[in-house]
Amino acid sequence: MSTTALPTQSSDFPAWYGEVVRRAGLAENSAVRGAMVIKPYGYAIWEAIQRELDDRIKATGHENFYFPLFVPGSVLAREGELVEGFAPEVAVVTQAGGKKLEEPLAVRPTSEALIWSTYARWVESYRDLPLLYNQWANVVRWELRPRLFLRTSEFLWQEGHTAHETEAEAVAETLTILHDVYADTIENVLAIPVLRGRKSESERFPGAVDTYTLEALMRDGKALQAATSHYLGQGFARTFDVRYTGRDGSERYPYATSWGASTRLVGGVVMAHGDDRGLRLPPRVAPQQVVIVPIFRDDDRADVLQTAAGVAAELRAARVRVRVDDRGDYRPGFKFNEWELKGAPVRIEIGSRDLAAGAVTVARRDSGEKRQIALPRVSAAVEELLDDIQRSLYREALHEQKRRTLHAPRGYEEMVEYLRDAAGFVEAPWCGRRECEIRVKEDSSGTIRCLPLDEEPTRRGTCVCCGRAAVAFPVWAQAY
Amino acid sequence: MSTTALPTQSSDFPAWYGEVVRRAGLAENSAVRGAMVIKPYGYAIWEAIQRELDDRIKATGHENFYFPLFVPGSVLAREGELVEGFAPEVAVVTQAGGKKLEEPLAVRPTSEALIWSTYARWVESYRDLPLLYNQWANVVRWELRPRLFLRTSEFLWQEGHTAHETEAEAVAETLTILHDVYADTIENVLAIPVLRGRKSESERFPGAVDTYTLEALMRDGKALQAATSHYLGQGFARTFDVRYTGRDGSERYPYATSWGASTRLVGGVVMAHGDDRGLRLPPRVAPQQVVIVPIFRDDDRADVLQTAAGVAAELRAARVRVRVDDRGDYRPGFKFNEWELKGAPVRIEIGSRDLAAGAVTVARRDSGEKRQIALPRVSAAVEELLDDIQRSLYREALHEQKRRTLHAPRGYEEMVEYLRDAAGFVEAPWCGRRECEIRVKEDSSGTIRCLPLDEEPTRRGTCVCCGRAAVAFPVWAQAY
Repeated sequence: MSTTALPTQSSDFPAWYGEVVRRAGLAENSAVRGAMVIKPYGYAIWEAIQRELDDRIKATGHENFYFPLFVPGSVLAREGELVEGFAPEVAVVTQAGGKKLEEPLAVRPTSEALIWSTYARWVESYRDLPLLYNQWANVVRWELRPRLFLRTSEFLWQEGHTAHETEAEAVAETLTILHDVYADTIENVLAIPVLRGRKSESERFPGAVDTYTLEALMRDGKALQAATSHYLGQGFARTFDVRYTGRDGSERYPYATSWGASTRLVGGVVMAHGDDRGLRLPPRVAPQQVVIVPIFRDDDRADVLQTAAGVAAELRAARVRVRVDDRGDYRPGFKFNEWELKGAPVRIEIGSRDLAAGAVTVARRDSGEKRQIALPRVSAAVEELLDDIQRSLYREALHEQKRRTLHAPRGYEEMVEYLRDAAGFVEAPWCGRRECEIRVKEDSSGTIRCLPLDEEPTRRGTCVCCGRAAVAFPVWAQAY
Repeated sequence: MSTTALPTQSSDFPAWYGEVVRRAGLAENSAVRGAMVIKPYGYAIWEAIQRELDDRIKATGHENFYFPLFVPGSVLAREGELVEGFAPEVAVVTQAGGKKLEEPLAVRPTSEALIWSTYARWVESYRDLPLLYNQWANVVRWELRPRLFLRTSEFLWQEGHTAHETEAEAVAETLTILHDVYADTIENVLAIPVLRGRKSESERFPGAVDTYTLEALMRDGKALQAATSHYLGQGFARTFDVRYTGRDGSERYPYATSWGASTRLVGGVVMAHGDDRGLRLPPRVAPQQVVIVPIFRDDDRADVLQTAAGVAAELRAARVRVRVDDRGDYRPGFKFNEWELKGAPVRIEIGSRDLAAGAVTVARRDSGEKRQIALPRVSAAVEELLDDIQRSLYREALHEQKRRTLHAPRGYEEMVEYLRDAAGFVEAPWCGRRECEIRVKEDSSGTIRCLPLDEEPTRRGTCVCCGRAAVAFPVWAQAY
């Protein structure tokens, strides 16, 4: 581990991010440009996110399956919007088994085309619907400006692909995923507050009728699109000729949804909670929720280690993820710094003064607060503390999001300046025309992150950009 | 679901296998030759296997990470044996992001090369060892004769990659994985007995000093290599220049292992336990351990369904995976056949006569045995039954393996005939020379599956093929 100080968030946020990701052992670049190695500590965070998402995906009635990595060029080409959207990012296999392939194979950038070409065989009657399926997979989208976790040429994700009898059912599915799977995981597990909204047409998924999104604010004032859920209408069904016999005997096309969340969320956890000392992990995704650092001299070594082992065993019995850092080659101060960098929510120090007091010293990573806790109360106190840290991180991030949201800027100049400085979210009325979106982007690098779902339909205003009557009150920001 | 009868195992095992995999909804072919779609029911079995393997991989001290899908041609080319072994099967990406790539990228057939080229950055001192890592990933090996699950151009697996200070430690690791991770999962969860052994030189993993294997007998008398664990010596460390400073201050090369188990195991479950009516799933990997089929007339519909729901709730509380098949469009007889095909270990029928008796009818899939059980005893009885089915399937497979193993054939002709008929395993003395292996293969299609680990070192004999003094008593068979 490097011993020089981290760059500060305020001086150089991108450098801070890169160094934290690298030094905390989350990920590193690989020999393939834009593709990262997810290191064990980073992968453990992803596994926690995966498990939480997967539980909710199954609890809402979905099953997992697995489709091939390769999509024949001819299958991908059938869906015009999808091809157009992804063509610049696709990697292509042209040789295999020692020969040139007759038909090149795309490495999946997303799997709608292959899956819907297969659903044609799976759906005959309304009895076969709905199809409620998901897969965990790697996808490849060539990145010109890669950043670890946030934009990588290969990433890991889940992609849900469902088919329904009615539009209402498909739209309801899209929103169930947005709220009960994604927002619930991101807010209650990752402790990141999100805005729930629809995308404007220009930011929609290629082929979607509507894209729903969750937008989170990072500590540099930029937005991160945390997960998306798409209502796809009947387009894919028509393209791939998926038809079924309806309840009335007529032939119909099912309605589709697709939805995804990816390893990008690990980057979100870093940027939503981290501080100048490193990561601050929400307990529910922390690989180690508690790290015990024994501090001993030769004469009390055995006592200290025995107490540490006892506390660890007790915490493990309470299903707390705990590690005793008894590495002999490093001093306690070095370990404190390392676990602060790695964002372990709670540190327990056990030294001779603690032993004498029949207690341990407990430090929380989020606030830095430290106090002594009597041994018999450690387990209960740590469980409370972990709950409190989980809630505090969320509250702090929510406070930050609210503090950095500019409602109703006084004019175009104020909005553009706010966005240009990446000062946070701006909520401002909009006429609904693409021209105004483009002008704001050109003037400020800010884009419409979403049209919030909870917007009051009766609200009136004039477009912040052109002065025409507003049709919506989007939230704008610079985005990752 | 097709209503025509399955082919029988004895008349056409490959046709039986293909039909069971297809009709039970485990997998199907995709638009990409040799790559399969793993359907929800098949994927649920894989998820159960994955969870069991992952628990054991972690319990033995390993962490998961994730390396990129693509391996630069130049990195792969550095390891001569590996390249030579896999070149004919590699898929190559030559275009990405709309451009021809300067350096083609191989789609990983296995990840030793990329991982060891990275370990060079991770290892400096003996303090950094051992590295005990694993990844869950897809790999691509172009297949000319693909078969669902058994040989597919893309498959899912885990691959472990470890580095150690000493040869003894690395060999011990290889065997820990073989016994405590793989054999434990395959025998106790998949209920498939395995032979534990080493591969002969010709069947070793490219670059390995020793390949350890688990070999299982399928119901057609052929062997399935169920998992392998490789001791790689210092070859990869030398090739990729991975060096560390040892405890004595000198520069050293670490010792490597790698090990993998794949979706092929799902095919193993089908072929080790299935019968002419379809799958017989061991309870520990069955997506539904119990299926409840309510049988009602209009007048007792509510009572029957209520009883079914009550039994299901009670079983779920006991952590039994249960499904009430209350589909209105299908008759009970159709459902019985379908769940037999799908191999659900226990079926519970609830009809009016059961209701009258305050009982349910319980049928076990493995033996077909059926009996009535009083309602208050259902939960306890089902738990016992599931345990018993798990054990019975293992016992039956072990009995079959023993019955079909020919010890000490009377001569070369008997051995060759036995192997040619795929009658099972043959244990026969061997001189250790490649020529004899080749001759047996040419005469019978049989190969050395392994040199059993439990062989008595003092045993004497003469090679079944050439009559020279035997150096080992391998087990031979035709293999998948």
